Amino acid sequence: MQKTAVFLGRFQPIHNGHLKVIEIILNEADELIILIGSSQYSHSFNNPFTAGERISMIRRALKENDLDLARIYIIPIPDTNDNRIWVSHVVATIPEFDIFFTNNPLVSRLMKEAGYKTQNTQMIDRDRLSSTAIRNKIYNDQPWESLVPNVVATFIKKIDGLNRIKDIGKIELKL
Amino acid sequence: MQKTAVFLGRFQPIHNGHLKVIEIILNEADELIILIGSSQYSHSFNNPFTAGERISMIRRALKENDLDLARIYIIPIPDTNDNRIWVSHVVATIPEFDIFFTNNPLVSRLMKEAGYKTQNTQMIDRDRLSSTAIRNKIYNDQPWESLVPNVVATFIKKIDGLNRIKDIGKIELKL
Amino acid sequence: MQKTAVFLGRFQPIHNGHLKVIEIILNEADELIILIGSSQYSHSFNNPFTAGERISMIRRALKENDLDLARIYIIPIPDTNDNRIWVSHVVATIPEFDIFFTNNPLVSRLMKEAGYKTQNTQMIDRDRLSSTAIRNKIYNDQPWESLVPNVVATFIKKIDGLNRIKDIGKIELKL
Amino acid sequence: MQKTAVFLGRFQPIHNGHLKVIEIILNEADELIILIGSSQYSHSFNNPFTAGERISMIRRALKENDLDLARIYIIPIPDTNDNRIWVSHVVATIPEFDIFFTNNPLVSRLMKEAGYKTQNTQMIDRDRLSSTAIRNKIYNDQPWESLVPNVVATFIKKIDGLNRIKDIGKIELKL
Amino acid sequence: MQKTAVFLGRFQPIHNGHLKVIEIILNEADELIILIGSSQYSHSFNNPFTAGERISMIRRALKENDLDLARIYIIPIPDTNDNRIWVSHVVATIPEFDIFFTNNPLVSRLMKEAGYKTQNTQMIDRDRLSSTAIRNKIYNDQPWESLVPNVVATFIKKIDGLNRIKDIGKIELKL
Amino acid sequence: MQKTAVFLGRFQPIHNGHLKVIEIILNEADELIILIGSSQYSHSFNNPFTAGERISMIRRALKENDLDLARIYIIPIPDTNDNRIWVSHVVATIPEFDIFFTNNPLVSRLMKEAGYKTQNTQMIDRDRLSSTAIRNKIYNDQPWESLVPNVVATFIKKIDGLNRIKDIGKIELKL
Repeated sequence: MQKTAVFLGRFQPIHNGHLKVIEIILNEADELIILIGSSQYSHSFNNPFTAGERISMIRRALKENDLDLARIYIIPIPDTNDNRIWVSHVVATIPEFDIFFTNNPLVSRLMKEAGYKTQNTQMIDRDRLSSTAIRNKIYNDQPWESLVPNVVATFIKKIDGLNRIKDIGKIELKL
Repeated sequence: MQKTAVFLGRFQPIHNGHLKVIEIILNEADELIILIGSSQYSHSFNNPFTAGERISMIRRALKENDLDLARIYIIPIPDTNDNRIWVSHVVATIPEFDIFFTNNPLVSRLMKEAGYKTQNTQMIDRDRLSSTAIRNKIYNDQPWESLVPNVVATFIKKIDGLNRIKDIGKIELKL
Repeated sequence: MQKTAVFLGRFQPIHNGHLKVIEIILNEADELIILIGSSQYSHSFNNPFTAGERISMIRRALKENDLDLARIYIIPIPDTNDNRIWVSHVVATIPEFDIFFTNNPLVSRLMKEAGYKTQNTQMIDRDRLSSTAIRNKIYNDQPWESLVPNVVATFIKKIDGLNRIKDIGKIELKL
Repeated sequence: MQKTAVFLGRFQPIHNGHLKVIEIILNEADELIILIGSSQYSHSFNNPFTAGERISMIRRALKENDLDLARIYIIPIPDTNDNRIWVSHVVATIPEFDIFFTNNPLVSRLMKEAGYKTQNTQMIDRDRLSSTAIRNKIYNDQPWESLVPNVVATFIKKIDGLNRIKDIGKIELKL
Repeated sequence: MQKTAVFLGRFQPIHNGHLKVIEIILNEADELIILIGSSQYSHSFNNPFTAGERISMIRRALKENDLDLARIYIIPIPDTNDNRIWVSHVVATIPEFDIFFTNNPLVSRLMKEAGYKTQNTQMIDRDRLSSTAIRNKIYNDQPWESLVPNVVATFIKKIDGLNRIKDIGKIELKL
Repeated sequence: MQKTAVFLGRFQPIHNGHLKVIEIILNEADELIILIGSSQYSHSFNNPFTAGERISMIRRALKENDLDLARIYIIPIPDTNDNRIWVSHVVATIPEFDIFFTNNPLVSRLMKEAGYKTQNTQMIDRDRLSSTAIRNKIYNDQPWESLVPNVVATFIKKIDGLNRIKDIGKIELKL
C-alpha cells in the first residue's frame, strides 16, 4: 500500500534544513506533497516571495539535490484566516494523504481534532537554519548563501530579492 | 534557453483530448505548467471534483502515459471573479513562463492585453472529447469510460463520482 | 441520551409546511436547530427577507403554535459559495447534532461524504406549500395569507414586504 | 443651502442619454456625484470597461460638453453582493448628499428603506440610447458612434474596445 | 409595548459576570438578544472556541441558572473588518431592538452615529471576572472553574478545551 | 503631450504638507489623480475617517486654496491585502498615468517591479506635518488646527471627529 506524506511550510525561502527534512520523509513515504502555506502573500518581510517564486526555488533545489520529482507534488495553498475551515480547505486542495508533517502546534491541533495523523519534523540545526534567520541576515548584509541550496541563492539574486527584502524591511522593521 | 509553457483547463475531469494536447506541448516546450482553473469549486455539475481530486487524476493519467513528471508542474488556481486582476493573480502563483495555451477567447484577450504570448490548443475530436460531454454521459448513464484514461475512470468510480454527478445533476439540471 | 436534530431551510418566508415538519421533528428529537441558510442575502426575489426578519418570523410562528422555544435554536448561516468547506463551516457554527434534515440532494451528499447522518423531510402538500409559490402569489396579487401562520402574514405586511417583493420582481422577473 | 445630487450608473459606456440627464440634474443641484457602480468588473459583455476606463470616458465627455468639472465628483463603487449593507457601503464612500437619482427599483427601495430621498431620472430616447443597445451594436458591427460623445467613441477605439467586446461576446452570447 | 435588548460579547468563554449582566437586563427588557461577536474565529488564544461551542456553553449556562430561554435569542455574528458597514450588518442579522448593551467604546460610537440607543453594562467584579483572565489562568494551570458556571467548566473539559488553549498559547504568547 | 501624475495617500486627515505637495505636482503635471488608499477603513485610530469624509475634506481644501478642480481626480481605492495584485488593482481603477508619487518604499517597489515610473514626494516639515502627529495631538487635547486647512478643521469638528478619535484611541492605544 502506497504511503503519502504532507510537509507544510511557507518556504520563505526554502533552506538546507527544509531539504534535509524532505530527504528524511522521502525515505519513509512513497509520495510527498510539499504544501506551500500563506501562498497569497508576498512582498512583506515575513513573506517576501510570491507562490510562483517559491515553487521555482523548491523545484530547482529538489533538482540540484537529485531528488525524484516524480514522487513529489508542490502545491500552493492560501491562508483562510478562519481556523474552523482550514482543514477542509487543505483536504479539498491536495490528494489524499496518510500523515501530515508540521512543527506548528496549532496546525497539529487542527489536524488532530479532524482525525488526521500528524508528526513533528526533525529540527535540523534550528538556530542557524530558519527562513526567519535568513531574511534577517539578508536585511543586515550578513552572509546567508551557505544556508540555502546554490540554485536558491542564485535565483534570489536574479529576481533582485535582496533589495526587495531590504526595501520592505525598511518599512516593517522600523514600525 | 529553456522554454516553459502553460496549459490552462478546469480538467473536470481530464480526458484523452487533454492528454493529447499535453503530449504535443511537451514536444515543443522544456517544461509544462498544467494550471487547474476554478480550483476552489467542487460538487457542482460544471465542477464536480475538488482541486485535490483533479490533481490526483492528472498525475495518474500522466504516469499511465509515461509522461515525464519531472518536466511538469500541476498547480491549482482559484478564480478571482475580477477579470482586472486575474492575470497578475496567475503570474504571481506560477513560475515564469514563455507561452500560454488556451482556447478561451477571454483568457487569451486578458493575457494579450497584459503582454503575454498566447496560443490556441489543437482541438482533438472536440465533439466527443470534452469534459462537458463526459459529465452529461455520466448523468445519462451512457458509456464514457473510453473517453478518459483508464486510471481516471477507475479513480472516479472509487470516489463514488458517478453518484456525485447524478445527485448534483438532479438539482442543477432541473432548475 | 439527548438527541439533537438540524432542519435547514431559507425560510423566505416560513410557511405552514415548515411548521408541520418542525412539529414532526420535535416529536422525535429532544432539541432542534433551525438553520437559516443563505443568511447574508436579502432584497432579491429568491431571498426577499433579511436574516433578522426571518428569525423574527420564525420565533413568532413557533410561539403562535405553542412550540417549546426552550428546545429550539434558531441560527443564521451565510452561504460560503465554496461547497468544499460548507460542511465544516456549518459544523463550527452550530452545536453538536445527531441528524440533519434536508431535501436538497447536494446538501445531503456533502453531509454524507463528511460522515453525517441525513434524512429527507416529509413533503407536506408541496405544490401549494412552498416559499417560491408564496412569493409568486404575492408578486401576482393572488391570495397567499392562508399558507403561512397568521403572525407571519401580519409581520410581512407590517414591514412593507409585499411592495418589496413586487419592486424586486419587476427587475428580476423581467430580465 | 448647497444641494448635492447623486447619479448612479454603470456607464458601460457613457452615452448621450447619460449626458442629458447629467445636464438636467446640474440645473437643479449645486454639486453632482456621478457614482460608477459595479466598479470592480470589467472584460465581461455587460461590463466591458474597467473603472479607470469609465472614469476617463466620463471626464472627456463632460469636458467636451463644457460641463463644470468643479461641481462634479466621479467616484467608483464596487458591488457588495449583499443588499443588506449596500446602502451603508455607498454612504460611507461618498460625500453627504440630498437626493439620489436612479431608475433601478431595487436601488430605489434600498435607499428609501434607509431613509434617503430618491428620484427617477428622465428616460431620454430609451430604446435607442442605452449602454446595452450600444454594446449589442458594436458586437453586431452596426453603427453606434452617434449614440455616444465623440471623445468616447475615439477612446473606445483607441483602447481596442471594439475587439474586446467582440471577443467576450463570442464566449458569453454563445452560452 | 414589548422591549428588546441586545447584549454583545465574544463569550470566550461565558463567565459568571456575563450571567449576572444577563439577569439584570432580563429584569428590564422583555426579550434579550445575546449577540456572539467575532463568530467566525476559533482556535486562537483570544478566540479559542467556535461559534457552535459558544452557543452550547451559553445555552447550558442559561438553563443551569433557570433563565427563560423563550425570552432569549442567541445569534452569532461574524466580524466584517469594515467598521463602516458593521452596524447595518448587525441590524440586518438580528430582530428589531430598542437598546444595545456594550462596554466597547467603538461599538457604542458606531451604534450612536447610526442613531441607536446604547448603554454600558455594569462591570461585575471586572478584575477577576473576565474571559481574558480565565484564558490566562487556564494557560498557566491556575484555578479558573469557580469563575464560570459549572456546566461551562464541564463542557470545556469535555471538548479538550484546556489543551487547546495551551497548545495555541504556546505559539501566540511566545511570539 | 498631456502628463498625468498620481499622488497616493490615506489623508487621515489631509494636512498642509499634503496640500504643498499637490501644488508642486500641479506645477509639473497637467492632471493629478489624488488616490485615497485604505479607502474601506474608518473608525480606527489610524483610519478614523470614511472615504466619503476624506473626499469631502480634500475637495474643500483644494477649493480653499484655489486649486483647479478640473485638473484633479479624487479616487478612493480599497486595500487588497494581497501585494501581488495591488498594482493591477490600482491600474484598473484609475485613468492612465505617467508617474506615481509616493514615499512608501513597498508601493514604490511594487510599482517599479511592474514597470511604472515612481518618484518620492518632497517631505514638507515632516516632523510636524503628518496625519499621525495630528491624530495624536487631537487625542491628547493639544493644538492641531494650524496644521490643516481651515475648512478641514471646521469639517472635522462638524462631524464630531474629535470625540470619534478620542473614543477609538481609548480602546486601541490602551491595548
